[in-house]
Amino acid sequence: MMIVMREGASDEQIAHVVDRVEQVGCSAHVSRGELLTVIGAIGDRDRVSGLGLEGVEGVDHLVPITKPYKLASSQFRKGERTVVEVDGRRIGGDHFGLIAGPCTVESREQTIDVGRVVAAAGATMFRGGAYKPRTSPYSFHGLGVEGLRLLAEAKQETGLPTVTELMDARDVADVVEVADVIQIGARNMQNYTLLSEAGRTGLPVLLKRGLSATLDELLMASEYVLKEGNPNVLLCERGIRTYESAYRFTLDLLAIPALKELTHLPVLVDPSHATGRRDWVEPMSLAAAAAGADGIIVEVHNDPEHAICDGPQQLRSSQFADYAAKVRSIVEIAGKEYSAV
Amino acid sequence: MMIVMREGASDEQIAHVVDRVEQVGCSAHVSRGELLTVIGAIGDRDRVSGLGLEGVEGVDHLVPITKPYKLASSQFRKGERTVVEVDGRRIGGDHFGLIAGPCTVESREQTIDVGRVVAAAGATMFRGGAYKPRTSPYSFHGLGVEGLRLLAEAKQETGLPTVTELMDARDVADVVEVADVIQIGARNMQNYTLLSEAGRTGLPVLLKRGLSATLDELLMASEYVLKEGNPNVLLCERGIRTYESAYRFTLDLLAIPALKELTHLPVLVDPSHATGRRDWVEPMSLAAAAAGADGIIVEVHNDPEHAICDGPQQLRSSQFADYAAKVRSIVEIAGKEYSAV
Amino acid sequence: MMIVMREGASDEQIAHVVDRVEQVGCSAHVSRGELLTVIGAIGDRDRVSGLGLEGVEGVDHLVPITKPYKLASSQFRKGERTVVEVDGRRIGGDHFGLIAGPCTVESREQTIDVGRVVAAAGATMFRGGAYKPRTSPYSFHGLGVEGLRLLAEAKQETGLPTVTELMDARDVADVVEVADVIQIGARNMQNYTLLSEAGRTGLPVLLKRGLSATLDELLMASEYVLKEGNPNVLLCERGIRTYESAYRFTLDLLAIPALKELTHLPVLVDPSHATGRRDWVEPMSLAAAAAGADGIIVEVHNDPEHAICDGPQQLRSSQFADYAAKVRSIVEIAGKEYSAV
Amino acid sequence: MMIVMREGASDEQIAHVVDRVEQVGCSAHVSRGELLTVIGAIGDRDRVSGLGLEGVEGVDHLVPITKPYKLASSQFRKGERTVVEVDGRRIGGDHFGLIAGPCTVESREQTIDVGRVVAAAGATMFRGGAYKPRTSPYSFHGLGVEGLRLLAEAKQETGLPTVTELMDARDVADVVEVADVIQIGARNMQNYTLLSEAGRTGLPVLLKRGLSATLDELLMASEYVLKEGNPNVLLCERGIRTYESAYRFTLDLLAIPALKELTHLPVLVDPSHATGRRDWVEPMSLAAAAAGADGIIVEVHNDPEHAICDGPQQLRSSQFADYAAKVRSIVEIAGKEYSAV
Repeated sequence: MMIVMREGASDEQIAHVVDRVEQVGCSAHVSRGELLTVIGAIGDRDRVSGLGLEGVEGVDHLVPITKPYKLASSQFRKGERTVVEVDGRRIGGDHFGLIAGPCTVESREQTIDVGRVVAAAGATMFRGGAYKPRTSPYSFHGLGVEGLRLLAEAKQETGLPTVTELMDARDVADVVEVADVIQIGARNMQNYTLLSEAGRTGLPVLLKRGLSATLDELLMASEYVLKEGNPNVLLCERGIRTYESAYRFTLDLLAIPALKELTHLPVLVDPSHATGRRDWVEPMSLAAAAAGADGIIVEVHNDPEHAICDGPQQLRSSQFADYAAKVRSIVEIAGKEYSAV
Repeated sequence: MMIVMREGASDEQIAHVVDRVEQVGCSAHVSRGELLTVIGAIGDRDRVSGLGLEGVEGVDHLVPITKPYKLASSQFRKGERTVVEVDGRRIGGDHFGLIAGPCTVESREQTIDVGRVVAAAGATMFRGGAYKPRTSPYSFHGLGVEGLRLLAEAKQETGLPTVTELMDARDVADVVEVADVIQIGARNMQNYTLLSEAGRTGLPVLLKRGLSATLDELLMASEYVLKEGNPNVLLCERGIRTYESAYRFTLDLLAIPALKELTHLPVLVDPSHATGRRDWVEPMSLAAAAAGADGIIVEVHNDPEHAICDGPQQLRSSQFADYAAKVRSIVEIAGKEYSAV
Repeated sequence: MMIVMREGASDEQIAHVVDRVEQVGCSAHVSRGELLTVIGAIGDRDRVSGLGLEGVEGVDHLVPITKPYKLASSQFRKGERTVVEVDGRRIGGDHFGLIAGPCTVESREQTIDVGRVVAAAGATMFRGGAYKPRTSPYSFHGLGVEGLRLLAEAKQETGLPTVTELMDARDVADVVEVADVIQIGARNMQNYTLLSEAGRTGLPVLLKRGLSATLDELLMASEYVLKEGNPNVLLCERGIRTYESAYRFTLDLLAIPALKELTHLPVLVDPSHATGRRDWVEPMSLAAAAAGADGIIVEVHNDPEHAICDGPQQLRSSQFADYAAKVRSIVEIAGKEYSAV
Repeated sequence: MMIVMREGASDEQIAHVVDRVEQVGCSAHVSRGELLTVIGAIGDRDRVSGLGLEGVEGVDHLVPITKPYKLASSQFRKGERTVVEVDGRRIGGDHFGLIAGPCTVESREQTIDVGRVVAAAGATMFRGGAYKPRTSPYSFHGLGVEGLRLLAEAKQETGLPTVTELMDARDVADVVEVADVIQIGARNMQNYTLLSEAGRTGLPVLLKRGLSATLDELLMASEYVLKEGNPNVLLCERGIRTYESAYRFTLDLLAIPALKELTHLPVLVDPSHATGRRDWVEPMSLAAAAAGADGIIVEVHNDPEHAICDGPQQLRSSQFADYAAKVRSIVEIAGKEYSAV
């Protein structure tokens, strides 16, 4: 942490800051410039942050030098990349995964139908929501335990590993019976209770970036899972909130190379929620693959006009095979191996 | 809901949309302009939204005409304003409340000390956190049940009603034993499980606006509390996330008159979290009061240099009486009654 | 334009609005719902906007139904796409262009060197700035007329058409002597004087999206050029301003399919300014091509460590041929023809 | 400037950076921590920035320590505040100014009428636009020279100094004949040509913050005026662009105390453009005054329903006296002197 003193800070003020830094067991290096004095505080970042030096007299501002996350940082694994493996499917490093399925589990027929289609087209995993976070308390909130049961049936039928969302820590026992990967939604990215619970299940966790979360905050959220001894976190960019109202969210694909520099964790993209529109899903999927994403999670429905939820953003199952083939051709150019069994 | 068709939409496409609107029990009015046809769908908004017409052929976009919230809307109470009353203190309508106390309950001495100071200066209620949501899993997360016990002691000492945060639905029984008002933090604004639980306690709920929540989303979140039969929600603007990095958040004071038009619920402002800096808390508090806020929730500490958490943003208890007097003088000009017993 | 009346608006208020709409030669259709009345104003959008009905009693809000731009809209060309052609090179429709060159013209050697490298690798056009908008008045502002002379020399040497920026209407005579395409920078996107002047030159105009411009605003800016009778505008996404501070700007690739729906004009991407970092330029270029962009404008320097301006974002000329080959391979998969002579 | 090296940067890489810093006449201080090495580059900030070290091997990122502006900084005037004085009216320091008038000069009657009303209510200066930047090329662009003539007449009639906008450097001779203060609009905040021209007139310049300009960028823009030897710049917050669509812009009142720390220049607020709605102008004006603004620039019209431009945001002249009285009462509590003759 660098502590930048105000112009004209007194020797006394500088000495006071040095004192406080040393009191928490860190060392302080003072550099006096012509105009400004900067104090480098070396040691545990959290201890120095905890001092609240921003409000102390003579201090102008603090500049963090190291990142606040540890287990998620590239340095922690010395440059080696995490590869999440589920039933022989791999995501991360050189491996690209395509996770597909309906937004919400609505019925046996819909779930099995879509499952068969995406399995036949070579999807890496199957996704489907039994619990749905909804902005309105009056909207459909998912089939719950009955939805989990249908997911189990689809898994039996297709052999694909299942990705499904956990919304409430009290549902964790039900969810782990079916899920191969637990999804944490964007609105829960900073629901720390839920992150810790998901971490403790030992299952891989697909963590969506919050609507206005910085990359640092996303990585700090992943740290809540990792610190439970669970090394398998899949990060997922799903569009951020900006001033632009021409689309639901702004898909931030620059997050892909940026995250790959900061962390060893795999980086996925969700083009369905970002765009909210079926016809924008394909160009954004190809762009994500070209930018080096480790995977895509995409919504597919057998009858999107009658979907209970988010119909307009779900690919038609009839177009999925063609879509998946295009994604694979870009994945190859990007130098990755498409993961399917 | 208005459904705007694309230029050149066919009669068949228009008829198909009309059909679908009528199938869910709503009526459809078709207006044909020179270039465009617009279909007004009259009836339950959620049913029309649920049709997913955005993806249907010939449809350009949908324009919601009515608001998605019901119980929170100004219309619901026919222009009458909600006044939240706790032990004779009132917030809302013509009544202004000043809620003050430390960010986090750290020790008996700190809690009682600050409690006495803010009570002596005429604060409306006392605030203090026993459970703290923290970006880092390695930071201090509050004293928990022990913190709640100290809050109970401070209440006994000062007679001030207590505002404290609920973070996990599993803590609700402990929290209701002490809290007079339950706070839901910004990061949990869309934690729907928690909102429903807080609603069911029957206690007033102070609901902070999420870091990038729109006013509509804030009101939809309040709807989760209201629909539990709990009419007492206090909305709280606490700074939003923007591109500007000169401050922690951008305090959005225009939300005050805008919310007062949309809803009957009281609107508070938290200048401490928005600014992150003690010297900016006073000007922003005065501005909030001048803009017509129904209250302020502000952090005060007896020794902010040694606060465990957020020291730089907490007012010193020695300056609180002077601060409170200035706020009251603006409250009077703004035509409100300051609420204290 | 739809005019949504407040709940409980009186018949008199509704009649007053109808009256005012009709006074400006538009027709008004009144739809009375259970709760709300909506008035559709049909006719010239600008006239209705000009009435300022938002402030009139009984009016809740206005909802524009048609877009404010005319010449730029897809409808204007009935779905046909604009192809900008310069010396046999084509950008737009099925044609993809790669425009490359240094940020700033610094010296004869640098300009000719980079020109030769990009020409040899098959670039579509050459770019280079003689006038540079700089945030600081103390920074280098370009070689001016001398820079234009060097660009002319590079054109002679390489045969590539030249793209260069116009910053001040008073330089237009000098710039048109050299430029084949006039660039308008992001900070000047709403400098309407400059847009009109650039339009009047008759040369194609490469118009960069402002740092926080919506797509509608970008298209309105292009309208200033088009209305001068100049049909050749190239739109360019170059990163927008968001809350994320991990990168200079957030590259908004969803703008590509969204603009292609709204307008017939070609859409380019500038990955250099968006990212500010050489190693992020390639993944974002490939992503742009995969998303369906009609071209890329990228910065290349023979010695970026000693560049006067923006060195860190310029590709090294030694890596350009390899970069261009990768871009071309994605362009082919995206179904476009790479444009070179 | 602090140069933070990557973890594991080699001694050679560190030496190379030190070398380059010293080559441009700055000195380099190397601090080696356990994990990271940080190099402090002391001397001219622009020279170090110009090195483009962000792209050099071993460098992680650069952290600016000093601010990029000089003449605008609080340090430059050693804490003394700039007071802009025009015909005995003062704005800045302890002096508060209220600038009022119509958005656009439309007719002799309108201009003189509004001028008389605001003069009678004690306005500090009169504002009115003869040249209007408009998003659409099809909108009204102001009366031009004829508008300037009407402003001159209003000045004769009321005795109030005139504030009017300059949009095109080629109009400067006409504008200076009438203007006492030259306004630069938000869309031109980074039109550097125009800033320099305005600076050279010697007249005070009212500089509006760009729609998505940071405070640093606003101050850098002011530096273009100041470096022409013109010390009289009035900064003006007028709402910034955020994700919130409930209002036209988000008024950023925290900019007031923040700017007052960074600069000696006066800080004004424009509540009319920020809110776009008459009924929100008063609460935001009172809030601005309470937050410590040095002035307000507000729009007033004698017949806003028939205003050519921005009618809904203009105060009615009949309500102006009452509005001005409320603003003055807050100005007094905020400890400022209201400036009128």
